[in-house]
Amino acid sequence: MSEDVQSLAKRRGFIWQSAEIYGSMAGFYDYGAMGARLKRNWENVWLKYFMGLNDNYHLIDSTNILPEAALKASGHVDSFTDPLVECTKCGHAFRADQLIEEATSTAAEELSLEEIDAKVSEIGLACPKCKGPFGKAMFFNMMFPIEVGTKGTDRAYLRPETAQGAYLNFKRHFEIMRRKLPLGLAIIGKAYRNEIAPRQGVYRMREFIQAELQIFMDPETFSDELDLSEMDGKEILVQLVDMRGKKDVQSMPCRYLIEQYKLPDFYVYHMLKVQEFYLDIIKIPKNKFRFYEKSEKERAFYNRVHFDIEVDLSTLGGFRELAGLHYRGDYDLTKHQIGSKEKMEVSLDGRKLIPHVLELSFGVDRNVWALLDIHLVDERTGVLKLPPQLAPYTFAVFPLMKKDELIPLAKEIHNLLKDDYDVCYDQSGSIGKRYARMDEIGTPFCITVDFDGLTDDTVTLRDTDTTEQKRVKVDELERIARGLASGKLKFKDLN
Amino acid sequence: MSEDVQSLAKRRGFIWQSAEIYGSMAGFYDYGAMGARLKRNWENVWLKYFMGLNDNYHLIDSTNILPEAALKASGHVDSFTDPLVECTKCGHAFRADQLIEEATSTAAEELSLEEIDAKVSEIGLACPKCKGPFGKAMFFNMMFPIEVGTKGTDRAYLRPETAQGAYLNFKRHFEIMRRKLPLGLAIIGKAYRNEIAPRQGVYRMREFIQAELQIFMDPETFSDELDLSEMDGKEILVQLVDMRGKKDVQSMPCRYLIEQYKLPDFYVYHMLKVQEFYLDIIKIPKNKFRFYEKSEKERAFYNRVHFDIEVDLSTLGGFRELAGLHYRGDYDLTKHQIGSKEKMEVSLDGRKLIPHVLELSFGVDRNVWALLDIHLVDERTGVLKLPPQLAPYTFAVFPLMKKDELIPLAKEIHNLLKDDYDVCYDQSGSIGKRYARMDEIGTPFCITVDFDGLTDDTVTLRDTDTTEQKRVKVDELERIARGLASGKLKFKDLN
Repeated sequence: MSEDVQSLAKRRGFIWQSAEIYGSMAGFYDYGAMGARLKRNWENVWLKYFMGLNDNYHLIDSTNILPEAALKASGHVDSFTDPLVECTKCGHAFRADQLIEEATSTAAEELSLEEIDAKVSEIGLACPKCKGPFGKAMFFNMMFPIEVGTKGTDRAYLRPETAQGAYLNFKRHFEIMRRKLPLGLAIIGKAYRNEIAPRQGVYRMREFIQAELQIFMDPETFSDELDLSEMDGKEILVQLVDMRGKKDVQSMPCRYLIEQYKLPDFYVYHMLKVQEFYLDIIKIPKNKFRFYEKSEKERAFYNRVHFDIEVDLSTLGGFRELAGLHYRGDYDLTKHQIGSKEKMEVSLDGRKLIPHVLELSFGVDRNVWALLDIHLVDERTGVLKLPPQLAPYTFAVFPLMKKDELIPLAKEIHNLLKDDYDVCYDQSGSIGKRYARMDEIGTPFCITVDFDGLTDDTVTLRDTDTTEQKRVKVDELERIARGLASGKLKFKDLN
Repeated sequence: MSEDVQSLAKRRGFIWQSAEIYGSMAGFYDYGAMGARLKRNWENVWLKYFMGLNDNYHLIDSTNILPEAALKASGHVDSFTDPLVECTKCGHAFRADQLIEEATSTAAEELSLEEIDAKVSEIGLACPKCKGPFGKAMFFNMMFPIEVGTKGTDRAYLRPETAQGAYLNFKRHFEIMRRKLPLGLAIIGKAYRNEIAPRQGVYRMREFIQAELQIFMDPETFSDELDLSEMDGKEILVQLVDMRGKKDVQSMPCRYLIEQYKLPDFYVYHMLKVQEFYLDIIKIPKNKFRFYEKSEKERAFYNRVHFDIEVDLSTLGGFRELAGLHYRGDYDLTKHQIGSKEKMEVSLDGRKLIPHVLELSFGVDRNVWALLDIHLVDERTGVLKLPPQLAPYTFAVFPLMKKDELIPLAKEIHNLLKDDYDVCYDQSGSIGKRYARMDEIGTPFCITVDFDGLTDDTVTLRDTDTTEQKRVKVDELERIARGLASGKLKFKDLN
């Protein structure tokens, strides 16, 4: 990770290692005041967009601690593992596939333990710490176990993904929501993985935040519920498995993905929706976005179709996964039907089925990091240009100087706006420093009360993007603020 | 807990036991779609109100997993315990103080282990499960330990309170926020306690949500930052320690608490703010609210002043703690200065001090439960009357019937409102059933499109509170909705 953006994220109050006064454990991060605002705004924008796809998509909340039986059924107790090699001399443990990838520059994620052992001896891999020889590779379960109760008889785990909470609650919600499909259950919350070697800052954390939407649906009728015509003439930025040799991302018509590549139409429809979210709302530049298809070997066996959603991040050296779109079939509910002995089958119009799941899975921390990476337009000046809906503050209100004449109107404007928008009020220090501070945290608009304005009831409105200033009437501020905050009004279109 | 409200909370999509298809572990609850909305709204209202107290109060986010060193320093590793007695025959464990309280109807929370053993033998307490005799009482640490890394060498715990995250981050925020006091750091998030005997549903959970604001301040100058005149003529509903005999809550002038009871003026100021939050925003009836003072023996030794905030809940049999206001002095930062060897002292106007902490601590789940308890106005009809800002949906939009003529306008109104408010659109089933459903989840206002309205551009607006209906112009809906949602316009004042 770029040290520059990392130190800048720390200095400006966005994100840094947890419990740093105690030296921090690897893979744990806290959000400062600016980061917490940015994260909450990202979550709100995500919620509004994806819950808006269907009236029957709902946010729920479920526990971080799950009983062993549930995670046994889901397969996590037995198979949620990474390969580990331990130095026989100093005892240090490493993620075997990562060591091999670094040493050989070829993908090793899918190697079996035997293949790893063979590779280690073939390339003569030794402990990076002490040069000692490695023992045999083994699988390490990444879940954190928890002992519930005084005797630890209730074995449990911290959830490795939020998705399970939605599967466990599907049946009850299906009843509450009057037995209709599609039914979407979204969870935004923590997930935990005891990574063998957490690296790259917020990209691979041991405690992280997910925003996941599980759409429970009937694959035979799901498309009828969607306005497929929205795909007409639209293209998706993809890198398919059969394009792996080429470097370029292709812009491919939706229809072509459906007809030529045999992707389900509902899947491509959701690719388009995810792409619109990133390009139109999060404002990721088109050339930095792609869907990256996972091969049959790379994807989990239950995923019938699996594309990662990747963004090109300069701080992480290229395209990196921020989200995934997974057509999981009926794998999850079937597994829980077997494990819990509760019937997951539903009846719809005389048909019986175990609903299929289309999962939209987003790493919140990675997405927040991407905002800092992408929208830090100038590393030298440190100016951050965030979309108004995402910025920690949409507006800042300043009296030009800390003078008794200017403060009342500035406070009045602050009060006028603060119920509806994120507004920062600041009266200390030079106006130049205050502008610079807002540039640094990505506040798109600053409103300054000066002496001229007191006589003609105007204030200056400054656009961070261009540093241009315009004089606007105080009694028009509310209307202008609404337009700018929603993005419906552009600064350049102000008279 | 009242079984009625509990089953109703489940049936209507508010809250139920986690992982219920696997039989659930005691003390774990999930929020359904309606509960998640209610909770998120409560959090947003809390944030807006308490962050609004000072421009230097900020929401942050910190990890659930904390290193042992931090919790050793805070005192939790050694002292965050409950007394436990175990049956020597069947091996069942119980919380000793609770057993004694139930058997004797007197408080036992503060008994030492020796006192517990004496009491157990004095009253002849036997195992409620098998009548076997108890062994000696012992302390049980309520934190969940976590082993981080492949060898478990990094010992950690799930945080037992969100507060520690604010203390650990104080120093960095103090620098980022330009070295000003008061500085407020708020965290809304999960906390975990391995309760020996979780009971009373959501009231005592093993995984729960806290909303805590830690105000770091200089006790000598904090009051200068507050508008103390707001307390003039205002009274606080209290039950002080010296009123324990009497049943009635007293309404006591703020000045009297400061002058007669020697409470710090900044403390009483925040009592008033908390009281306003509950009475004016959450709409708790005055006769169901009180501050309950904890005696020196009942409160943690580091709390210089400690009142619980209690609400009278019919489902829990009386006044129960929903929040606490704790003047913790410089205990926390001093402990972390010793533990981390990082200097927590700050310099302000030539004075050096370790900032004091005033903590506003709220149990989110308890508060959400209280909303269901208090606002369920009629258990027979099941009508829930939630304030517009808190209700899962503020508005519902219905076409009177599922007719092609009515649906377009209904959808248009839904689109008009849904960006700014929580709006439910529903077109299936009889209008009576749809009203009843909204009554059940506390939707304050329903908007219905009927045939008359198509000719004169009106809709009916129904007030859940009174079931009264009024006809309003479609082009006035946006203005009316804004007024009703904010509470500035009352339904009865509509012409």
